[in-house]
Amino acid sequence: MIRVLLVHDECLVRSVLAEWLRQESDLAVHDTSWRGAPGMMRSVRPDVCAADLECADSYGIPPLGELCRPGPDRVRPRLLVLATANRPGLLKRAAEAGALGYVDKEGSPQNLLRGIRRIAEGERFVNDSLGFGFLKAAEMPLTRRELSVLSLAAEGASIAEIAGSLHLSHGTVRNYMAAITRKTGARNRIDAIRISQGQGWL
Amino acid sequence: MIRVLLVHDECLVRSVLAEWLRQESDLAVHDTSWRGAPGMMRSVRPDVCAADLECADSYGIPPLGELCRPGPDRVRPRLLVLATANRPGLLKRAAEAGALGYVDKEGSPQNLLRGIRRIAEGERFVNDSLGFGFLKAAEMPLTRRELSVLSLAAEGASIAEIAGSLHLSHGTVRNYMAAITRKTGARNRIDAIRISQGQGWL
Repeated sequence: MIRVLLVHDECLVRSVLAEWLRQESDLAVHDTSWRGAPGMMRSVRPDVCAADLECADSYGIPPLGELCRPGPDRVRPRLLVLATANRPGLLKRAAEAGALGYVDKEGSPQNLLRGIRRIAEGERFVNDSLGFGFLKAAEMPLTRRELSVLSLAAEGASIAEIAGSLHLSHGTVRNYMAAITRKTGARNRIDAIRISQGQGWL
Repeated sequence: MIRVLLVHDECLVRSVLAEWLRQESDLAVHDTSWRGAPGMMRSVRPDVCAADLECADSYGIPPLGELCRPGPDRVRPRLLVLATANRPGLLKRAAEAGALGYVDKEGSPQNLLRGIRRIAEGERFVNDSLGFGFLKAAEMPLTRRELSVLSLAAEGASIAEIAGSLHLSHGTVRNYMAAITRKTGARNRIDAIRISQGQGWL
Protein backbone atom coordinates (compact mmCIF):
# COMPACT_ATOMS: atom_id res chain seq x y z
CA MET A 1 0.00 0.00 0.00
CA ILE A 2 1.16 3.55 -0.80
CA ARG A 3 0.37 6.02 2.00
CA VAL A 4 -0.70 9.29 0.34
CA LEU A 5 -1.27 12.67 1.98
CA LEU A 6 -3.38 14.92 -0.24
CA VAL A 7 -2.97 18.66 0.48
CA HIS A 8 -5.57 21.06 -0.96
CA ASP A 9 -7.09 24.20 0.54
CA GLU A 10 -10.63 23.76 -0.81
CA CYS A 11 -12.47 21.25 1.37
CA LEU A 12 -15.08 20.40 -1.29
CA VAL A 13 -12.53 19.65 -4.02
CA ARG A 14 -10.18 17.89 -1.59
CA SER A 15 -12.94 15.54 -0.37
CA VAL A 16 -13.96 14.54 -3.88
CA LEU A 17 -10.33 14.10 -5.02
CA ALA A 18 -9.54 11.99 -1.94
CA GLU A 19 -12.63 9.84 -2.50
CA TRP A 20 -11.59 9.37 -6.13
CA LEU A 21 -8.05 8.33 -5.13
CA ARG A 22 -9.46 5.89 -2.55
CA GLN A 23 -11.03 3.86 -5.38
CA GLU A 24 -7.49 2.62 -6.13
CA SER A 25 -6.78 -0.50 -4.13
CA ASP A 26 -3.05 0.29 -3.70
CA LEU A 27 -3.54 3.73 -2.15
CA ALA A 28 -4.24 4.64 1.50
CA VAL A 29 -5.30 8.28 1.35
CA HIS A 30 -5.33 11.00 4.04
CA ASP A 31 -6.19 14.61 3.25
CA THR A 32 -5.67 18.04 4.79
CA SER A 33 -5.39 21.78 4.12
CA TRP A 34 -2.03 23.58 3.83
CA ARG A 35 -2.46 24.81 7.40
CA GLY A 36 -2.80 21.25 8.69
CA ALA A 37 -0.14 19.79 6.39
CA PRO A 38 3.03 20.00 8.52
CA GLY A 39 1.25 18.29 11.45
CA MET A 40 -0.21 15.58 9.21
CA MET A 41 3.21 14.95 7.64
CA ARG A 42 4.48 14.10 11.12
CA SER A 43 1.51 11.94 12.14
CA VAL A 44 0.77 10.14 8.84
CA ARG A 45 4.39 9.84 7.57
CA PRO A 46 3.13 9.42 3.98
CA ASP A 47 5.11 7.71 1.22
CA VAL A 48 3.95 10.47 -1.11
CA CYS A 49 2.64 13.95 -0.34
CA ALA A 50 0.50 15.21 -3.26
CA ALA A 51 0.02 18.96 -2.78
CA ASP A 52 -1.90 21.55 -4.78
CA LEU A 53 0.33 24.61 -5.22
CA GLU A 54 -2.56 27.03 -4.68
CA CYS A 55 -2.57 28.12 -1.07
CA ALA A 56 -5.24 30.23 0.62
CA ASP A 57 -2.88 31.77 3.20
CA SER A 58 0.35 33.81 3.08
CA TYR A 59 -0.53 35.66 -0.12
CA GLY A 60 -0.93 32.41 -2.05
CA ILE A 61 2.61 31.14 -1.43
CA PRO A 62 2.48 27.59 0.00
CA PRO A 63 4.82 26.74 2.92
CA LEU A 64 6.76 24.15 0.88
CA GLY A 65 9.83 24.39 3.10
CA GLU A 66 7.87 23.18 6.15
CA LEU A 67 6.44 20.30 4.14
CA CYS A 68 9.80 19.09 2.85
CA ARG A 69 11.70 19.17 6.13
CA PRO A 70 13.36 15.77 6.76
CA GLY A 71 11.73 13.58 9.47
CA PRO A 72 13.43 12.24 12.61
CA ASP A 73 14.92 9.47 10.42
CA ARG A 74 16.43 12.26 8.24
CA VAL A 75 14.38 11.02 5.29
CA ARG A 76 12.94 13.82 3.13
CA PRO A 77 9.24 13.42 2.32
CA ARG A 78 8.54 12.60 -1.35
CA LEU A 79 6.61 15.52 -2.74
CA LEU A 80 4.40 15.66 -5.84
CA VAL A 81 2.81 19.00 -6.74
CA LEU A 82 -0.32 19.88 -8.70
CA ALA A 83 0.75 22.83 -10.83
CA THR A 84 0.01 24.96 -13.90
CA ALA A 85 2.46 26.24 -16.51
CA ASN A 86 1.26 29.83 -16.07
CA ARG A 87 2.55 30.20 -12.48
CA PRO A 88 6.29 29.62 -13.12
CA GLY A 89 7.28 31.17 -9.80
CA LEU A 90 5.42 28.42 -7.96
CA LEU A 91 7.09 25.74 -10.12
CA LYS A 92 10.44 27.27 -9.23
CA ARG A 93 9.63 27.23 -5.52
CA ALA A 94 8.55 23.58 -5.72
CA ALA A 95 11.77 22.66 -7.55
CA GLU A 96 13.84 24.52 -4.93
CA ALA A 97 11.99 22.65 -2.18
CA GLY A 98 13.00 19.37 -3.87
CA ALA A 99 9.66 18.18 -5.26
CA LEU A 100 10.02 14.96 -7.30
CA GLY A 101 6.70 15.07 -9.15
CA TYR A 102 4.90 17.77 -11.19
CA VAL A 103 1.35 17.04 -12.37
CA ASP A 104 -0.32 19.56 -14.71
CA LYS A 105 -3.75 20.60 -13.45
CA GLU A 106 -4.68 21.35 -17.06
CA GLY A 107 -4.28 17.63 -17.88
CA SER A 108 -6.08 14.36 -17.17
CA PRO A 109 -6.56 13.18 -13.56
CA GLN A 110 -4.93 9.89 -14.61
CA ASN A 111 -1.61 11.78 -14.47
CA LEU A 112 -2.09 12.14 -10.73
CA LEU A 113 -2.35 8.36 -10.28
CA ARG A 114 0.66 7.74 -12.53
CA GLY A 115 2.64 10.43 -10.71
CA ILE A 116 1.85 9.07 -7.23
CA ARG A 117 2.96 5.55 -8.18
CA ARG A 118 6.15 6.77 -9.85
CA ILE A 119 7.12 9.03 -6.92
CA ALA A 120 6.40 6.20 -4.46
CA GLU A 121 9.16 4.26 -6.23
CA GLY A 122 11.53 7.19 -5.72
CA GLU A 123 11.50 8.23 -9.37
CA ARG A 124 10.73 11.62 -10.91
CA PHE A 125 7.49 12.46 -12.71
CA VAL A 126 6.95 15.59 -14.83
CA ASN A 127 4.10 16.28 -17.25
CA ASP A 128 5.53 17.49 -20.58
CA SER A 129 2.89 20.22 -20.76
CA LEU A 130 4.60 22.00 -17.84
CA GLY A 131 7.77 22.47 -19.92
CA PHE A 132 7.05 26.06 -20.89
CA GLY A 133 6.42 26.91 -17.23
CA PHE A 134 9.82 25.54 -16.22
CA LEU A 135 11.45 27.54 -19.02
CA LYS A 136 9.78 30.72 -17.72
CA ALA A 137 10.80 29.80 -14.16
CA ALA A 138 14.43 29.52 -15.24
CA GLU A 139 14.18 33.01 -16.72
CA MET A 140 12.87 34.60 -13.52
CA PRO A 141 14.75 37.90 -13.56
CA LEU A 142 14.62 38.99 -9.91
CA THR A 143 17.18 38.32 -7.19
CA ARG A 144 16.15 37.07 -3.76
CA ARG A 145 16.77 40.57 -2.36
CA GLU A 146 14.66 42.22 -5.03
CA LEU A 147 11.86 39.74 -4.32
CA SER A 148 11.96 40.65 -0.61
CA VAL A 149 11.64 44.34 -1.47
CA LEU A 150 8.81 43.69 -3.93
CA SER A 151 6.94 41.40 -1.51
CA LEU A 152 6.88 44.12 1.13
CA ALA A 153 5.77 46.69 -1.46
CA ALA A 154 2.99 44.32 -2.57
CA GLU A 155 1.75 44.15 1.02
CA GLY A 156 1.34 47.93 0.90
CA ALA A 157 4.54 48.94 2.75
CA SER A 158 5.96 52.41 1.99
CA ILE A 159 9.57 53.00 0.90
CA ALA A 160 10.35 54.03 4.50
CA GLU A 161 8.75 50.88 5.93
CA ILE A 162 10.60 48.64 3.47
CA ALA A 163 13.88 50.40 4.31
CA GLY A 164 13.19 49.90 8.03
CA SER A 165 12.30 46.20 7.66
CA LEU A 166 15.30 45.28 5.55
CA HIS A 167 17.82 47.67 7.19
CA LEU A 168 18.44 49.57 3.96
CA SER A 169 18.55 53.28 3.15
CA HIS A 170 15.57 54.89 1.39
CA GLY A 171 17.76 55.48 -1.68
CA THR A 172 18.74 51.82 -1.88
CA VAL A 173 15.10 50.72 -1.71
CA ARG A 174 14.28 53.21 -4.51
CA ASN A 175 17.13 51.77 -6.59
CA TYR A 176 15.83 48.24 -6.01
CA MET A 177 12.32 49.28 -7.03
CA ALA A 178 13.67 50.90 -10.22
CA ALA A 179 15.69 47.76 -11.06
CA ILE A 180 12.66 45.54 -10.42
CA THR A 181 10.42 47.68 -12.64
CA ARG A 182 13.02 47.58 -15.44
CA LYS A 183 13.75 43.85 -15.15
CA THR A 184 10.09 42.79 -15.14
CA GLY A 185 9.40 44.99 -18.17
CA ALA A 186 6.79 46.84 -16.12
CA ARG A 187 5.50 50.37 -16.64
CA ASN A 188 5.66 51.22 -12.95
CA ARG A 189 5.73 49.75 -9.46
CA ILE A 190 2.11 48.57 -9.46
CA ASP A 191 2.62 46.95 -12.86
CA ALA A 192 5.75 45.15 -11.55
CA ILE A 193 3.70 43.72 -8.66
CA ARG A 194 0.91 42.66 -11.01
CA ILE A 195 3.34 40.93 -13.38
CA SER A 196 5.23 39.19 -10.56
CA GLN A 197 2.05 37.98 -8.85
CA GLY A 198 0.71 36.71 -12.17
CA GLN A 199 3.89 34.68 -12.65
CA GLY A 200 3.70 33.33 -9.10
CA TRP A 201 7.01 34.95 -8.09
CA LEU A 202 5.46 36.79 -5.16
CA MET B 1 -32.97 13.88 -15.36
CA ILE B 2 -31.33 17.18 -14.40
CA ARG B 3 -28.98 18.51 -17.10
CA VAL B 4 -25.97 20.02 -15.30
CA LEU B 5 -23.15 22.09 -16.82
CA LEU B 6 -20.11 22.13 -14.54
CA VAL B 7 -17.76 25.11 -15.09
CA HIS B 8 -14.24 24.93 -13.59
CA ASP B 9 -10.93 26.16 -14.99
CA GLU B 10 -8.75 23.30 -13.72
CA CYS B 11 -9.16 20.31 -16.04
CA LEU B 12 -7.95 17.77 -13.46
CA VAL B 13 -10.34 18.91 -10.73
CA ARG B 14 -13.20 19.41 -13.18
CA SER B 15 -12.87 15.86 -14.54
CA VAL B 16 -12.90 14.28 -11.10
CA LEU B 17 -15.80 16.46 -9.91
CA ALA B 18 -17.80 15.63 -13.07
CA GLU B 19 -17.11 11.91 -12.64
CA TRP B 20 -18.23 12.16 -9.02
CA LEU B 21 -21.47 13.94 -10.01
CA ARG B 22 -22.16 11.32 -12.72
CA GLN B 23 -22.50 8.67 -10.01
CA GLU B 24 -25.89 10.24 -9.25
CA SER B 25 -28.58 8.59 -11.37
CA ASP B 26 -30.66 11.79 -11.69
CA LEU B 27 -27.86 13.97 -13.11
CA ALA B 28 -26.67 14.28 -16.73
CA VAL B 29 -23.37 16.13 -16.44
CA HIS B 30 -21.40 18.16 -19.01
CA ASP B 31 -18.26 20.08 -18.09
CA THR B 32 -16.20 22.96 -19.47
CA SER B 33 -13.79 25.78 -18.63
CA TRP B 34 -14.91 29.40 -18.22
CA ARG B 35 -13.70 30.15 -21.73
CA GLY B 36 -15.93 27.41 -23.16
CA ALA B 37 -18.88 28.14 -20.88
CA PRO B 38 -20.97 30.61 -22.97
CA GLY B 39 -20.84 28.26 -25.98
CA MET B 40 -21.74 25.21 -23.87
CA MET B 41 -24.64 27.09 -22.29
CA ARG B 42 -26.10 27.53 -25.78
CA SER B 43 -25.48 23.95 -26.95
CA VAL B 44 -26.26 22.01 -23.72
CA ARG B 45 -29.08 24.27 -22.41
CA PRO B 46 -28.53 22.93 -18.87
CA ASP B 47 -31.20 22.98 -16.17
CA VAL B 48 -28.47 24.03 -13.73
CA CYS B 49 -25.09 25.64 -14.38
CA ALA B 50 -22.72 24.92 -11.44
CA ALA B 51 -19.74 27.27 -11.77
CA ASP B 52 -16.59 27.69 -9.69
CA LEU B 53 -16.05 31.42 -9.08
CA GLU B 54 -12.27 31.15 -9.56
CA CYS B 55 -11.45 32.06 -13.14
CA ALA B 56 -8.04 31.78 -14.78
CA ASP B 57 -8.58 34.65 -17.24
CA SER B 58 -9.46 38.35 -16.99
CA TYR B 59 -7.63 38.93 -13.73
CA GLY B 60 -9.64 36.26 -11.93
CA ILE B 61 -13.04 37.84 -12.56
CA PRO B 62 -15.40 35.26 -14.12
CA PRO B 63 -17.62 36.42 -17.04
CA LEU B 64 -20.84 35.85 -15.10
CA GLY B 65 -22.82 38.28 -17.25
CA GLU B 66 -22.24 36.18 -20.37
CA LEU B 67 -23.27 33.04 -18.51
CA CYS B 68 -26.53 34.47 -17.22
CA ARG B 69 -27.80 35.99 -20.45
CA PRO B 70 -31.35 34.74 -21.19
CA GLY B 71 -31.66 32.16 -24.02
CA PRO B 72 -33.81 32.55 -27.19
CA ASP B 73 -36.83 31.54 -25.09
CA ARG B 74 -35.98 34.49 -22.77
CA VAL B 75 -35.43 32.03 -19.90
CA ARG B 76 -32.48 32.94 -17.65
CA PRO B 77 -30.14 30.00 -16.94
CA ARG B 78 -30.26 28.76 -13.34
CA LEU B 79 -26.85 29.43 -11.86
CA LEU B 80 -25.25 27.87 -8.78
CA VAL B 81 -21.78 29.10 -7.78
CA LEU B 82 -18.97 27.44 -5.81
CA ALA B 83 -17.69 30.20 -3.55
CA THR B 84 -15.74 31.09 -0.42
CA ALA B 85 -16.65 33.61 2.29
CA ASN B 86 -13.28 35.36 1.99
CA ARG B 87 -13.87 36.67 -1.55
CA PRO B 88 -16.96 38.84 -0.88
CA GLY B 89 -16.50 40.78 -4.11
CA LEU B 90 -17.07 37.59 -6.11
CA LEU B 91 -20.16 36.75 -4.05
CA LYS B 92 -21.49 40.23 -4.80
CA ARG B 93 -20.85 39.78 -8.53
CA ALA B 94 -22.64 36.41 -8.48
CA ALA B 95 -25.62 37.94 -6.66
CA GLU B 96 -25.76 40.83 -9.16
CA ALA B 97 -25.69 38.30 -12.01
CA GLY B 98 -28.75 36.62 -10.44
CA ALA B 99 -27.21 33.35 -9.16
CA LEU B 100 -29.78 31.24 -7.28
CA GLY B 101 -27.34 28.92 -5.47
CA TYR B 102 -24.22 29.50 -3.35
CA VAL B 103 -22.21 26.44 -2.26
CA ASP B 104 -19.29 26.96 0.16
CA LYS B 105 -16.08 25.36 -1.11
CA GLU B 106 -14.98 25.10 2.52
CA GLY B 107 -17.84 22.68 3.19
CA SER B 108 -18.87 19.13 2.30
CA PRO B 109 -19.30 18.10 -1.37
CA GLN B 110 -22.79 16.85 -0.43
CA ASN B 111 -23.81 20.53 -0.44
CA LEU B 112 -23.15 20.61 -4.17
CA LEU B 113 -25.62 17.75 -4.78
CA ARG B 114 -28.23 19.33 -2.50
CA GLY B 115 -27.71 22.71 -4.20
CA ILE B 116 -28.05 21.34 -7.73
CA ARG B 117 -31.34 19.55 -6.91
CA ARG B 118 -32.77 22.60 -5.12
CA ILE B 119 -31.85 24.99 -7.95
CA ALA B 120 -33.26 22.58 -10.55
CA GLU B 121 -36.64 23.07 -8.82
CA GLY B 122 -36.23 26.83 -9.16
CA GLU B 123 -35.57 27.38 -5.46
CA ARG B 124 -32.69 29.21 -3.78
CA PHE B 125 -29.81 27.48 -2.01
CA VAL B 126 -27.27 29.23 0.23
CA ASN B 127 -24.79 27.62 2.62
CA ASP B 128 -25.04 29.33 6.03
CA SER B 129 -21.26 29.45 6.27
CA LEU B 130 -21.17 32.03 3.45
CA GLY B 131 -23.19 34.49 5.55
CA PHE B 132 -20.20 36.53 6.69
CA GLY B 133 -19.05 36.83 3.09
CA PHE B 134 -22.41 38.30 2.06
CA LEU B 135 -22.25 40.72 4.98
CA LYS B 136 -18.80 41.88 3.82
CA ALA B 137 -20.07 42.11 0.23
CA ALA B 138 -22.87 44.42 1.34
CA GLU B 139 -20.29 46.66 2.98
CA MET B 140 -18.19 47.04 -0.19
CA PRO B 141 -17.21 50.71 0.08
CA LEU B 142 -16.31 51.60 -3.52
CA THR B 143 -18.53 53.05 -6.21
CA ARG B 144 -18.60 51.63 -9.72
CA ARG B 145 -16.55 54.63 -10.93
CA GLU B 146 -13.94 54.15 -8.21
CA LEU B 147 -13.69 50.48 -9.13
CA SER B 148 -13.05 51.39 -12.77
CA VAL B 149 -10.22 53.73 -11.72
CA LEU B 150 -8.72 51.15 -9.38
CA SER B 151 -8.98 48.34 -11.95
CA LEU B 152 -6.95 50.37 -14.46
CA ALA B 153 -4.40 51.25 -11.75
CA ALA B 154 -4.12 47.56 -10.83
CA GLU B 155 -3.30 46.77 -14.46
CA GLY B 156 -0.35 49.14 -14.16
CA ALA B 157 -1.87 52.20 -15.84
CA SER B 158 -0.45 55.62 -14.86
CA ILE B 159 -2.61 58.54 -13.68
CA ALA B 160 -2.35 60.01 -17.20
CA GLU B 161 -3.41 56.74 -18.84
CA ILE B 162 -6.37 56.32 -16.46
CA ALA B 163 -7.41 59.92 -17.12
CA GLY B 164 -7.21 59.28 -20.88
CA SER B 165 -9.20 56.01 -20.74
CA LEU B 166 -12.01 57.38 -18.60
CA HIS B 167 -12.09 60.93 -20.06
CA LEU B 168 -11.27 62.53 -16.71
CA SER B 169 -8.74 65.17 -15.68
CA HIS B 170 -5.53 64.14 -13.91
CA GLY B 171 -6.70 65.93 -10.76
CA THR B 172 -10.00 64.02 -10.75
CA VAL B 173 -8.18 60.68 -11.05
CA ARG B 174 -5.91 61.71 -8.15
CA ASN B 175 -9.00 62.60 -6.10
CA TYR B 176 -10.57 59.21 -6.88
CA MET B 177 -7.37 57.41 -5.88
CA ALA B 178 -7.24 59.34 -2.60
CA ALA B 179 -10.91 58.50 -1.87
CA ILE B 180 -10.29 54.82 -2.70
CA THR B 181 -7.26 54.65 -0.42
CA ARG B 182 -9.23 56.25 2.43
CA LYS B 183 -12.39 54.14 1.95
CA THR B 184 -10.53 50.83 1.81
CA GLY B 185 -8.54 51.72 4.94
CA ALA B 186 -5.35 51.32 2.92
CA ARG B 187 -1.95 52.86 3.59
CA ASN B 188 -1.39 53.78 -0.04
CA ARG B 189 -2.42 52.98 -3.60
CA ILE B 190 -0.68 49.58 -3.73
CA ASP B 191 -2.26 48.62 -0.42
CA ALA B 192 -5.70 49.62 -1.76
CA ILE B 193 -5.20 47.32 -4.76
CA ARG B 194 -4.02 44.47 -2.52
CA ILE B 195 -7.03 44.82 -0.20
CA SER B 196 -9.50 45.08 -3.07
CA GLN B 197 -8.07 42.08 -4.91
CA GLY B 198 -8.07 40.05 -1.69
CA GLN B 199 -11.77 40.81 -1.25
CA GLY B 200 -12.49 39.89 -4.86
CA TRP B 201 -13.69 43.42 -5.72
CA LEU B 202 -11.24 43.80 -8.58
